[in-house]
Amino acid sequence: MLEEKLRRIFAASGAEALFVEADFLRRYLTRFYSTDGFVLLDGEHCRYVADLRYFEAAEKALKGSCIEVVEGSYKEALELAKAYKTLGVPYPYIDLARAEELKREGFALVDCMPALKEAMIVKSDRELALIQRACNIAEEGFLATLPEIKEGMTESELSALLEYNMRKFGASGTSFETICAFGAGASVPHHETGDTKLKFGDPILIDFGCKAEGYCSDITRTFLFGDDKKHEDFKRAYQEVLKAHELVKEKLTSGMTGKEADEIARGSLRAAGLDKLFTHSLGHGVGLLIHEFPRLSPTSSEVLLDGMVFSDEPGIYEAGAFGIRIEDTVCLKDGRVRSFMSKTQHGLLIL
Amino acid sequence: MLEEKLRRIFAASGAEALFVEADFLRRYLTRFYSTDGFVLLDGEHCRYVADLRYFEAAEKALKGSCIEVVEGSYKEALELAKAYKTLGVPYPYIDLARAEELKREGFALVDCMPALKEAMIVKSDRELALIQRACNIAEEGFLATLPEIKEGMTESELSALLEYNMRKFGASGTSFETICAFGAGASVPHHETGDTKLKFGDPILIDFGCKAEGYCSDITRTFLFGDDKKHEDFKRAYQEVLKAHELVKEKLTSGMTGKEADEIARGSLRAAGLDKLFTHSLGHGVGLLIHEFPRLSPTSSEVLLDGMVFSDEPGIYEAGAFGIRIEDTVCLKDGRVRSFMSKTQHGLLIL
Repeated sequence: MLEEKLRRIFAASGAEALFVEADFLRRYLTRFYSTDGFVLLDGEHCRYVADLRYFEAAEKALKGSCIEVVEGSYKEALELAKAYKTLGVPYPYIDLARAEELKREGFALVDCMPALKEAMIVKSDRELALIQRACNIAEEGFLATLPEIKEGMTESELSALLEYNMRKFGASGTSFETICAFGAGASVPHHETGDTKLKFGDPILIDFGCKAEGYCSDITRTFLFGDDKKHEDFKRAYQEVLKAHELVKEKLTSGMTGKEADEIARGSLRAAGLDKLFTHSLGHGVGLLIHEFPRLSPTSSEVLLDGMVFSDEPGIYEAGAFGIRIEDTVCLKDGRVRSFMSKTQHGLLIL
Repeated sequence: MLEEKLRRIFAASGAEALFVEADFLRRYLTRFYSTDGFVLLDGEHCRYVADLRYFEAAEKALKGSCIEVVEGSYKEALELAKAYKTLGVPYPYIDLARAEELKREGFALVDCMPALKEAMIVKSDRELALIQRACNIAEEGFLATLPEIKEGMTESELSALLEYNMRKFGASGTSFETICAFGAGASVPHHETGDTKLKFGDPILIDFGCKAEGYCSDITRTFLFGDDKKHEDFKRAYQEVLKAHELVKEKLTSGMTGKEADEIARGSLRAAGLDKLFTHSLGHGVGLLIHEFPRLSPTSSEVLLDGMVFSDEPGIYEAGAFGIRIEDTVCLKDGRVRSFMSKTQHGLLIL
């Protein structure tokens, strides 16, 4: 008997069977992780095709579930698929080479990503708990790192230290390459972490996250390494970004669109004359991918609902001077925003 | 004037222009890295479409090169592409959703991956130097980690420590998730690194690597955490894996196929009655991707040539007992194998 989640996804797909290879989607469907494998899902069965490297572990992990493990690789998955004519494959997460192979085998393909997205965009309690864990680890890693920040260390060294601390607190890895910028380097939103050395009075922007059983956290903190009293503009701007960030937590309610959510922060920065420096969108969904659905941007018509998880990350970037971003991973619960981040401070930290 | 590499790739592609979005391929074509962007290459021009996050950095990095930077994202890239009818896209590295969009716009698509692969499979001196750097960092990180290995630490802790040390020596990140296995855990080639604690006498298998400017290293070492004198079978098997590993370095010459290379190691293990325990292939190409071309396996007809970089990684796995793998990243130069790894020992290390 298929579990409810799988039954709904299959029913919404419009395919005779789903044929899924992308690793994070396999993980979503089965909760089992491997670097290679295939999931075949029809209205009755869900089969996991695992090669010899993973077969034993998959059998053990999926015992008692509705998922049957079959030994093999692409060839065996293809043989199983031949029972169907129309396969649902996730168009954004299947490469064209594989798609062409399947077409040459005579399959008609339909996009099952809308069905997967509809299920994945609202997180289960288990998923929320894993994201909470990834967020806790990220914050604990950050707090453990703060006392180790020293003048003269490089952006790369600070990133390495933070990543190590997250690993020590139980992260399986980072959810993306840590962005760490000292001083004016932060005015580039996607600054490349490098060999710049930390000086007294530098603002530090650090955007980081980690994974727990595949689920991501995403957090940015901007703070001062000592106060050289030269940062009046920075401090004023910080308060405006903080206000925009907090306003989203206060005013965003379930049922709003991504555009309306974005406008809460953008409008607040506009009132302060800073909206032109807010050069990216407010947020993005967070889950098994670091950039997921929904999108919170000036053009997003997606409706935000309870159980969705996304980032709240307004930022402003004054070219050549400074960059400020304050980001939490948050979710909607009972109609309101609930942040996963409660251990680190949001008000300006001066080390 | 296009540089020679780009001209050859374009000429071999059979397209009016290449349209490339995958990040490692953009990096290969331009040497500039960003998480998003597009490269458009025809017989005359190479254009890099970068959004506001990357535009400035791209302009700076590509100044003086044959590559022109254009501000924009998908929309702008599409407009530029409309000068052509047939676009070369890398079939294994473009998703079906994007491919379908391009088809709806009226483009005919051809696979430019064969042209890219032909160029990428033979590394330039610059690429070999970067891979050497990534290998040096991996080995230095490993050597710095050895004295910190203590009884009671977990596989995850050891992985975190090693990754931190690689970062300290200059790695921008790992080239894949570190695999660390204590004791019998190593008998699963893709063991999931976990909370198992290190005990005196345990064999340790650690498979790891890092990146330098995007280029990967890949190395595995298997060693003993103290000698409890219970490891006679392990030690005997270790010598056989080492023999297979070294034989590849000695006997593999340019012009052999991937299958012939694999057979050097497999034949040696067969003579020792251990080939049934060698459950994977001998090696894989290493470059901007950790698993690249060529493949060294019992079915690979690819011809190995000077300038190619790949792993030499025979291994044997005795279920429930132990796993042994010895892996170097190596290249072919002047017809012979040259290892990038010279700092760490290959003979059995007993801590």
